[in-house]
Amino acid sequence: MEELIKYGEKFFDELEIVTYKAKDVSVDIELNEISMAATRTDVITIIRGIKDKRIGISIVDTIDKEEVKKAIEQAAKMAKLNNPDEKWVSLPEPGKYREQPEPNEELREVSPDILVEMAIKGIKIAREKDEHVTVAGGSIATSWVETWIGNSHGIDVIQRFGNAYAFFELVGRKEGIVTPGIFEFDAKDNLALDVEGTVEKALQKVQWAYKVKEAKNEEVPIILGPWAIAGLFAYTLFPAFSGERLVKKTTPLADKVGEKIASDVITIYDDPFHELSLAKVIADGEGVPTRRYELINNGEFKGFIWDNYWAKIYGTESTGHGHRDFRGGGVSIGLNTPIIENGKRSLEEIIGEIKHGYFVDGVQGAHSSNPDNGNFAVTANPAYLIEDGEIVGASVFLIAGNIYELLKQASEVSKEQTVMPVMYTVITPYIKFENVKIAGKK
Amino acid sequence: MEELIKYGEKFFDELEIVTYKAKDVSVDIELNEISMAATRTDVITIIRGIKDKRIGISIVDTIDKEEVKKAIEQAAKMAKLNNPDEKWVSLPEPGKYREQPEPNEELREVSPDILVEMAIKGIKIAREKDEHVTVAGGSIATSWVETWIGNSHGIDVIQRFGNAYAFFELVGRKEGIVTPGIFEFDAKDNLALDVEGTVEKALQKVQWAYKVKEAKNEEVPIILGPWAIAGLFAYTLFPAFSGERLVKKTTPLADKVGEKIASDVITIYDDPFHELSLAKVIADGEGVPTRRYELINNGEFKGFIWDNYWAKIYGTESTGHGHRDFRGGGVSIGLNTPIIENGKRSLEEIIGEIKHGYFVDGVQGAHSSNPDNGNFAVTANPAYLIEDGEIVGASVFLIAGNIYELLKQASEVSKEQTVMPVMYTVITPYIKFENVKIAGKK
Repeated sequence: MEELIKYGEKFFDELEIVTYKAKDVSVDIELNEISMAATRTDVITIIRGIKDKRIGISIVDTIDKEEVKKAIEQAAKMAKLNNPDEKWVSLPEPGKYREQPEPNEELREVSPDILVEMAIKGIKIAREKDEHVTVAGGSIATSWVETWIGNSHGIDVIQRFGNAYAFFELVGRKEGIVTPGIFEFDAKDNLALDVEGTVEKALQKVQWAYKVKEAKNEEVPIILGPWAIAGLFAYTLFPAFSGERLVKKTTPLADKVGEKIASDVITIYDDPFHELSLAKVIADGEGVPTRRYELINNGEFKGFIWDNYWAKIYGTESTGHGHRDFRGGGVSIGLNTPIIENGKRSLEEIIGEIKHGYFVDGVQGAHSSNPDNGNFAVTANPAYLIEDGEIVGASVFLIAGNIYELLKQASEVSKEQTVMPVMYTVITPYIKFENVKIAGKK
Repeated sequence: MEELIKYGEKFFDELEIVTYKAKDVSVDIELNEISMAATRTDVITIIRGIKDKRIGISIVDTIDKEEVKKAIEQAAKMAKLNNPDEKWVSLPEPGKYREQPEPNEELREVSPDILVEMAIKGIKIAREKDEHVTVAGGSIATSWVETWIGNSHGIDVIQRFGNAYAFFELVGRKEGIVTPGIFEFDAKDNLALDVEGTVEKALQKVQWAYKVKEAKNEEVPIILGPWAIAGLFAYTLFPAFSGERLVKKTTPLADKVGEKIASDVITIYDDPFHELSLAKVIADGEGVPTRRYELINNGEFKGFIWDNYWAKIYGTESTGHGHRDFRGGGVSIGLNTPIIENGKRSLEEIIGEIKHGYFVDGVQGAHSSNPDNGNFAVTANPAYLIEDGEIVGASVFLIAGNIYELLKQASEVSKEQTVMPVMYTVITPYIKFENVKIAGKK
């Protein structure tokens, strides 16, 4: 690859080449049956070259040397046609990297058979334990990813990692009641997915959902589960950490470094090396080292995250949060693996102390939130009613509010910590919030 | 490929093999610059095999004979593990096909250079003609697709087609006004995209949008443009034509064959051979012949569309509307190229007669519509105010209603007919509707 960087230097002042190879194996479930098994490979090379501050990006789906050379020439032509980006400073320099954990090689070549077996097992358990249950959907899948990031300043990073996930969607039909779709997930950086545990958790929720309880307008304690947190935080809180938004003045956290923006129980940091992480990357999408990076410490906001471009414009350094978009080729600011610190007591203990409240498993409509100010309006569904320390049924209600007000109402985080592989990979406990206003919905 | 069908017959009672090869070249625009050029190829083989009514589907991203054989074996294993689908009848038989028009071979190998040139030209025209305009986004892209569909009943169809599209999103900033994103499209089955005309149409709309006019609650005539029609009809009307929905009783058209469901001016049919069509396919995703198929004739509902599976369950025949999902491998019911018949008078003449009303260019939120009954609630944006036969500014308002009530209010269709390549390919004129209730929005 060094040869290709050399070749590109004929055309550019600076040049970056990223290659991405992925192998995905997946098995899908639909209405109690295996609906398909698929094996796919993806190969992509992205060229980003800069000449006189003019940027050219080209993408080809090969690592063939001659084709990549042509893509370099294509990027060079594009750069010539574009206007200079006067804000451009430079591509990143190499940094000090942590030692990459050995990936689980078993994820490199996975036979669909193993995943089919897991899917069949999951369907069987669900249907045997509750004859009223349909496995409406689901997926068992593995990924193996190899990336190389190199640039003309000497960055030269090879990374390999793999992961696996399973999800099941159960629907129960009993005595005229049809439950909402109940989702449960498991995800790991190895193949030891807990299919049985995952399905049993979903079955428990289906049991709860057979009893429909109407919610009313009131102020109550609520517990948000990992799936709800991933959905809500991804659209309200996480974007506000972006340095680009600081530069563009579209984050409500602009003057808040060192200030309390959440209650004491909330500590959030970013670290792809966390044991539950699904991608233990040593470098971000531009080859800048990743690290343990504090975002909120006992409620205090610690600082913004940066990619190379916006950091240099602001006069600071990339924090290793350059997220590479393999479809569009570009880089945007994003968290690697956000982690919300867990607490001492179990979810069961926390529920046990609630006289009247709700456990919210999933939220809908979070994507319409406004990250500029943190306002959101979501439908809590599925959500479970807690009475005298026990879950007694399922409800649907609206929560409209502001994420920063909500974060100040956080009173406890559970001991259990889960990695949520959907939408945004988040490692999180259950979080209890006090006095949350809800509006019942039929 | 015959050899592979033979191989598969060892494992299955019936077997279908579909291969899909696509080459996509695209150039993206972001903030007045070419943000990237990409070349991608996709190769997919889908196996659908049936043994004792048990179905197995497997997907591999190659056409390599040995790999496809392995995928056949994989599908056979899956079929064994699945339960029989008692509703299953059989795969389709060969039919009588029309003669496929020769595709434009120029779309087979397109250099990104040509697309870059078009993008640069578009940006230049936009910026030269209005210095307050930013080309916020855009894309120029071509596709070349080759498919083969074969099954053990003798279906053996090879198809090749190509198309190209361009879209530009313009935003104007003048005297404190920031216009909404103004989109304009062109799409053809050849490379002769009209970049200049497309950008000029968008510039005209930006001019209108500089004058913001507040909408109030009232009943007015509105004209829906092609983009708005594609968005609204795709989520409210088109799903109701599905035979699967007839079987499952989730279409409001169940007892309406032969009845008036729209005003006289509305005639809709499906025909991939229309001259503006972007994919002149002779067969659907299962190899069943396509044809000119009437849906609504002068307001009268003519009948449902079917794929092979649901048609046989209902006791009828596939109408050539089996839509192949190349990600999931499955088949669902879908229109090929819906066409709304055009009229005699130009958009300008129609606008010229409106004393007070609106021309709605785009709608937001159509995906939340309910196809079971046709109810919808969308935000009309961009929408343009018409006063005394002329457009005098831009507004935003809500339209909440029912598609079947709206269709009865249709009073005229324009002479101009456009192919809309987004979301759902639809060939449509502008349509005028009388007495539409709107609610102003700030």
